[in-house]
Amino acid sequence: MPVFTSSIHIFTDGFCDIHNLSAQVESGLKGTKLRHGVAVIFAPGATAAITTIEFESGALKDFEAAIQKFAPEGIHYHHDSRWHDGNGFSHVRAAFLGPSVSVPFDAGKLLLGTWQQIILVDFDNRPRHREVIFQFIGN
Amino acid sequence: MPVFTSSIHIFTDGFCDIHNLSAQVESGLKGTKLRHGVAVIFAPGATAAITTIEFESGALKDFEAAIQKFAPEGIHYHHDSRWHDGNGFSHVRAAFLGPSVSVPFDAGKLLLGTWQQIILVDFDNRPRHREVIFQFIGN
Amino acid sequence: MPVFTSSIHIFTDGFCDIHNLSAQVESGLKGTKLRHGVAVIFAPGATAAITTIEFESGALKDFEAAIQKFAPEGIHYHHDSRWHDGNGFSHVRAAFLGPSVSVPFDAGKLLLGTWQQIILVDFDNRPRHREVIFQFIGN
Repeated sequence: MPVFTSSIHIFTDGFCDIHNLSAQVESGLKGTKLRHGVAVIFAPGATAAITTIEFESGALKDFEAAIQKFAPEGIHYHHDSRWHDGNGFSHVRAAFLGPSVSVPFDAGKLLLGTWQQIILVDFDNRPRHREVIFQFIGN
Repeated sequence: MPVFTSSIHIFTDGFCDIHNLSAQVESGLKGTKLRHGVAVIFAPGATAAITTIEFESGALKDFEAAIQKFAPEGIHYHHDSRWHDGNGFSHVRAAFLGPSVSVPFDAGKLLLGTWQQIILVDFDNRPRHREVIFQFIGN
Repeated sequence: MPVFTSSIHIFTDGFCDIHNLSAQVESGLKGTKLRHGVAVIFAPGATAAITTIEFESGALKDFEAAIQKFAPEGIHYHHDSRWHDGNGFSHVRAAFLGPSVSVPFDAGKLLLGTWQQIILVDFDNRPRHREVIFQFIGN
């Protein structure tokens, strides 16, 4: 059974910058010619995360507001006292959300819901050049 | 290496309605005759999530209370202002929890802990007819 | 395509005790001689979780503080009223964080970020002897 591993590169703004990856994952899958299997989408890095959401501006703002309440900017973080890079909140958010999502595909299509998109969330406190790994395993 | 993809259908009540999927995943696995590999359980849709928990009423209520505190009903959501479907809280909760869990199996059995069950959590604000994808990859 | 399933055993202190698993996962992967595929790291049990973080003491303390705020010790849990084992907060935290992470590997190396480590978080309220499953699928 073949394994296809590729990556895309994205310039992000940080501060909960959210990118819709669905079209690129679909396109990567199509390139593999696989029909049945699983897509693993993975963010290498300790201040970004992958999940799914309905990609519309209201839900994205609500998501950001809930994250902001969960691990606010502007409170004390031990990470910042030690490293002075000011992104303690980014680390906490990314660890909580997690770096990967696994999406099954069948008949060559991702089995996402109609309004469900795969997103990269960059929680860092500065613009970043991000790599995201796409891996397709199947046949 | 074979890939088996199937789905089950569940009628849910919404509002953090939690369903124990473990028996159905075990039974789906048995049907494949696979011995070693991974089960991916995936909820297509932007207002449901998959995780594991000890499926007893106390822990389920505690889980719901924590979620309610994290992303309450009854506060302002941008999603609701725009779409008027009143389920902004559902989107935030589902995105945070995530749509899938991957559970290894060996000797034909899921490697879950003794008190650990796989659950579907429906966060929507109305009854739904849900599909859940089971995918088994292995040999 | 081969599947390799193994496990490690760890003595933990509970109460958000965090263990860095990256070296052991890398070493397990090396033992399989696989080059391309996915590593699934899974915690069997309803009071532990797996995620990734920058494993430095500041970020770990910040993570623990955010979890403590999300599902505090010392408040009422229905689980505790029923079972009297006092670890209601552990169940809520573990369910929210999730039991597994999937990390792609290529050319025999995990595709983690430079500062990103795989961690086991033991949320229980007592020392535990934990098993963690490593599964490698690829070729």
